[in-house]
Amino acid sequence: MSVLITNNSSKVRIKWLASVTSDAWLQQALAHPIELLIDHAHCERKAAGAALQMMFRYLCEPGLAEALSPLVREELEHFECVLEILKSRGRYLEPLHAPPYGAVLAKSIRGVEPERMLDSFLVAGLIEARSHERMSLLASNCPDIELANLYRDLLTSEARHFGIYWTLAEERFDRKVITSRLQELAAVEAETLIELHCAPRMHS
Amino acid sequence: MSVLITNNSSKVRIKWLASVTSDAWLQQALAHPIELLIDHAHCERKAAGAALQMMFRYLCEPGLAEALSPLVREELEHFECVLEILKSRGRYLEPLHAPPYGAVLAKSIRGVEPERMLDSFLVAGLIEARSHERMSLLASNCPDIELANLYRDLLTSEARHFGIYWTLAEERFDRKVITSRLQELAAVEAETLIELHCAPRMHS
Repeated sequence: MSVLITNNSSKVRIKWLASVTSDAWLQQALAHPIELLIDHAHCERKAAGAALQMMFRYLCEPGLAEALSPLVREELEHFECVLEILKSRGRYLEPLHAPPYGAVLAKSIRGVEPERMLDSFLVAGLIEARSHERMSLLASNCPDIELANLYRDLLTSEARHFGIYWTLAEERFDRKVITSRLQELAAVEAETLIELHCAPRMHS
Repeated sequence: MSVLITNNSSKVRIKWLASVTSDAWLQQALAHPIELLIDHAHCERKAAGAALQMMFRYLCEPGLAEALSPLVREELEHFECVLEILKSRGRYLEPLHAPPYGAVLAKSIRGVEPERMLDSFLVAGLIEARSHERMSLLASNCPDIELANLYRDLLTSEARHFGIYWTLAEERFDRKVITSRLQELAAVEAETLIELHCAPRMHS
């Protein structure tokens, strides 16, 4: 799962994602760079929280904690980078109304094991994949050089994080079961993004 | 709050702690080094979880996230170190029955703000201070050189973490209010340790 993307000028098509981000999203995002940056800080800390929660839930599962703990640390490093830029521009974290994206995906996680574990890996992976796609768009199109560089620096990690979740799934589940469920979840993920959210968000 | 300890041969007296760890605890801990190590891994990940939870609760409080996020990362680094040693000895994380220590201290945190915030800082700080004291004992007395070195490497961080929580408190509360409440909570902390827990734990 090392190759996640196939490049196509500034627009990238991410393997596994069931849709390509719309131009309307990009225009909305570019028009509100600081609000998007604050939202991105929230995304990084939420990704850290979700991975830590997963690590705690399956704590005695061999091979899981040593994969997830460094991932949590990296999400927090990114959170701190974003916070630094916000502060350098006289801003800080602000409460933002969350789009339905995360809640819809969380609801798609089945409640019984081992399906719950598989879905948790795949949902987390899909969110990372979508972040990667959108950061690629921002890195190529954001006129603010500092922000474009930030997104460029972060986007490779998002792809790597998808790979970590994919590997965790592959070590524990049959490849056919994984790809079939990933396609189902990718369809849900794409559906939540069909209607553009009223506010600029990384996952709206 | 840079000087946390006054040294007295292998036994250290930690400023703010209302009691000194008993010899009975040390003997129990030394007799079960691997169980203590597994418990210590749990302590590091719980400390990370508690700090992240605090960061999420007070997310828009300026100066908090940038202090707590690196602290969470460091706790997780320590967790990974301990896990590595466990794995090198053919062991892994195991579910352990928790002593009442954490739950008793959590109950002492008042429910209304800003008292809740102050108590959260002080309780977290006291746990770090106790860890520091006990790791000093283990570093000086553990006959297993690898484990003694591990505890020696980690103990200075515990003192620094106490300092972080102290600073967070001092930036937001009156010094007299802090020291008075810290004494009260330190008395509770010491009381939970009077009776030695049946199983070897870092905080028992």
